[in-house]
Amino acid sequence: MSDRTPAPVPDRLKEWEQRTEVPLFVAALVFLAGYAVRVLAPVGAQPWRDIALALVAATWLLFAVDYVVRLRLSGLGRRFVHVHWLDTVVLLLPLLRPLRMVKVYTAVQKRTDRPRLSLYARVMTYAGLTATLLGFSAALAVYYQERGAPGASIRTFGDSVWWACATLTTVGYGDAVPVTVTGRVIAAFLMACGLALLGAVTGSFSSWLVEVFKREDEKKRPPGSA
Amino acid sequence: MSDRTPAPVPDRLKEWEQRTEVPLFVAALVFLAGYAVRVLAPVGAQPWRDIALALVAATWLLFAVDYVVRLRLSGLGRRFVHVHWLDTVVLLLPLLRPLRMVKVYTAVQKRTDRPRLSLYARVMTYAGLTATLLGFSAALAVYYQERGAPGASIRTFGDSVWWACATLTTVGYGDAVPVTVTGRVIAAFLMACGLALLGAVTGSFSSWLVEVFKREDEKKRPPGSA
Amino acid sequence: MSDRTPAPVPDRLKEWEQRTEVPLFVAALVFLAGYAVRVLAPVGAQPWRDIALALVAATWLLFAVDYVVRLRLSGLGRRFVHVHWLDTVVLLLPLLRPLRMVKVYTAVQKRTDRPRLSLYARVMTYAGLTATLLGFSAALAVYYQERGAPGASIRTFGDSVWWACATLTTVGYGDAVPVTVTGRVIAAFLMACGLALLGAVTGSFSSWLVEVFKREDEKKRPPGSA
Amino acid sequence: MSDRTPAPVPDRLKEWEQRTEVPLFVAALVFLAGYAVRVLAPVGAQPWRDIALALVAATWLLFAVDYVVRLRLSGLGRRFVHVHWLDTVVLLLPLLRPLRMVKVYTAVQKRTDRPRLSLYARVMTYAGLTATLLGFSAALAVYYQERGAPGASIRTFGDSVWWACATLTTVGYGDAVPVTVTGRVIAAFLMACGLALLGAVTGSFSSWLVEVFKREDEKKRPPGSA
Repeated sequence: MSDRTPAPVPDRLKEWEQRTEVPLFVAALVFLAGYAVRVLAPVGAQPWRDIALALVAATWLLFAVDYVVRLRLSGLGRRFVHVHWLDTVVLLLPLLRPLRMVKVYTAVQKRTDRPRLSLYARVMTYAGLTATLLGFSAALAVYYQERGAPGASIRTFGDSVWWACATLTTVGYGDAVPVTVTGRVIAAFLMACGLALLGAVTGSFSSWLVEVFKREDEKKRPPGSA
Repeated sequence: MSDRTPAPVPDRLKEWEQRTEVPLFVAALVFLAGYAVRVLAPVGAQPWRDIALALVAATWLLFAVDYVVRLRLSGLGRRFVHVHWLDTVVLLLPLLRPLRMVKVYTAVQKRTDRPRLSLYARVMTYAGLTATLLGFSAALAVYYQERGAPGASIRTFGDSVWWACATLTTVGYGDAVPVTVTGRVIAAFLMACGLALLGAVTGSFSSWLVEVFKREDEKKRPPGSA
Repeated sequence: MSDRTPAPVPDRLKEWEQRTEVPLFVAALVFLAGYAVRVLAPVGAQPWRDIALALVAATWLLFAVDYVVRLRLSGLGRRFVHVHWLDTVVLLLPLLRPLRMVKVYTAVQKRTDRPRLSLYARVMTYAGLTATLLGFSAALAVYYQERGAPGASIRTFGDSVWWACATLTTVGYGDAVPVTVTGRVIAAFLMACGLALLGAVTGSFSSWLVEVFKREDEKKRPPGSA
Repeated sequence: MSDRTPAPVPDRLKEWEQRTEVPLFVAALVFLAGYAVRVLAPVGAQPWRDIALALVAATWLLFAVDYVVRLRLSGLGRRFVHVHWLDTVVLLLPLLRPLRMVKVYTAVQKRTDRPRLSLYARVMTYAGLTATLLGFSAALAVYYQERGAPGASIRTFGDSVWWACATLTTVGYGDAVPVTVTGRVIAAFLMACGLALLGAVTGSFSSWLVEVFKREDEKKRPPGSA
């Protein structure tokens, strides 16, 4: 009745999303690999650096095409940009793609009969994998920013990965820290995400452990005794 | 029957609080902006610094008027100071205003029909915003204390914001730390608040994630199967 | 029937514990104050240092008398030392007295009609106060160990309190850290306790916040709607 | 019916696991002690170092025999390696044995009539003990890697234990940090495990505290009042 008529479109959008989710996740891994080669390969390694750049550009184009298709299918017009703001951010900063992983997980799950892991194990797996991918992305981006900075304590990619580990777990030794403004902005973002994601890992592990011990109790107790 | 007769007054107090909450929150943001200009503007930028001082003074007066009106409407007399101790503290240290934000949120919600976000999303939004505002206030206050101190590691406002991020998330690199007594007192306060607020963000995110995965299970399972 | 006959004794023990809990808590505060004066007063301030030593000795004697009385009343004989191991540890290291505070809280509560605070507020109050007292005790003990150590970064009592804050909240800047073995043992103990206690504060605050937002929902929704 | 016929075998596997769990845990402690002597004893202390090496080799052989027996009893063939991947990892890196402690706990519990501790106390005990053992193993392994490294800040075993404490509790002072690649890999592993295990300790303590305070309420309230 309204001029938006969203009713029939979302079905096609859902179908599109379910079909593209896994290929796009693979594309995101390719993007990350390309970006990693671009950042980590020595300047002279020309053939590889060009291939990496081409991969990054191609996968980003894929993401853009997907975004436009979904914008059309949604029938929301420009409002899509606001409603699906996380997708918009992820389009502009493809290193954040892991944040959309919950959808990949759902899409994969739909094809199998039943979840193979318990509820808490799935939350732990999802949050742990997302944190690992985000941490790796952040380590790459921070290393790219810091390697040329004067007085930097992150000088090798190993330092950067070490810094990302200490940051994600909120240990924060301080032996390797970003000193550039961009590096610190990335770090602040990683802290916020890492805190939430690893909090989910911790919380689920704790709930899972309590459940395991509770189940033991119930096994031993004869049924109906309490 | 008692000489306090609080029964009819709280209604007027409630009405007052609900009406003034949002304007006062805007005033708090103006206060924060004025304080920020006062702290960050170079000494020579005279017209701006004077305007900022005027804004800070005017908004603080607003807070004082609100406090007195509520003290009167409550019919509690001097006991108001003890009963509403958080309001008293917030009057004396207006940088702590964000702590009252839960009331603003409630007041805004009352005007709309139904909450637009799920329970955990609202807790995350509220705790995250409060933590951000408190962190910004603390960064300003610590920068004001530290910039002239001998041997300080917080020398620019950027350092101070970076320090606030690392403190709120309990990462604590230690590359930028307050060295003055006042700075350390502010830091200790930020640690305590940040811990509780970000704990709420983390906990809510974890609960939300568990809920999302649980819902997926229920969708797939035929109704009544378990 | 057995040679332990514990049945009639625990009643008298309970009565004793309920009556002595609050006086003993006051004695613990006096002990802490005496220890603080002993550690912080300059060596020359002789009258005060002697009074402090007397207070420390007298209150410790009180604790010892209480321990012996309870050992007798319990009818457990030597097994009391194992069964009530926390009391035994607290007798030997009276700075850990705050850990018994949950009993003080219970004893105080029993005299009033009903709890004045909600469940989560009480957990937060108890855990927060215990953490504060333990942190203060640890700051005193670490300062006592570190002040004379070569290469120490904790040189004043202010440094020590700052270190205790950063440790309890797990921020851990690392600008002030114990370097002596005894100092590090105290620190490790404070980390373990602080982690558990502040985790309880954080968890309760999070639960309380979720409850506040949930209550708002229920108010707005007409009864019986879902 | 299938060619795997797993039905009758698991019973014998279960019996084997229940019977060997405690002896194997004792063997794991002997392994850890042997490794500790090997790492900590001075190079000259030849008789002890040889005995330690023999103990390490003998206990590892025990683990290997147990693994092979269980592989046979399970009737899974090569799939055992994937299905019981944690056991496979623990066989290759016996310092991770504490991670299997939940099974030891269960095996011990099955012999006694009923659990002697409440649910949360058991989770705390299990997670706390596992964290302690893993922390000690990590301290040994990191010390072994770092002691000869140029520019290392972990120079004594005391430094290494102190580092493990600060890492497990996510305090992370940064006064003692691994600088070698192997040391940092061990550290990253300890951070991940420590975070999850100590999160379980904290969460259980918090739940236990809430339960204690809740019970107090119910005692005071007359039954049936709400």
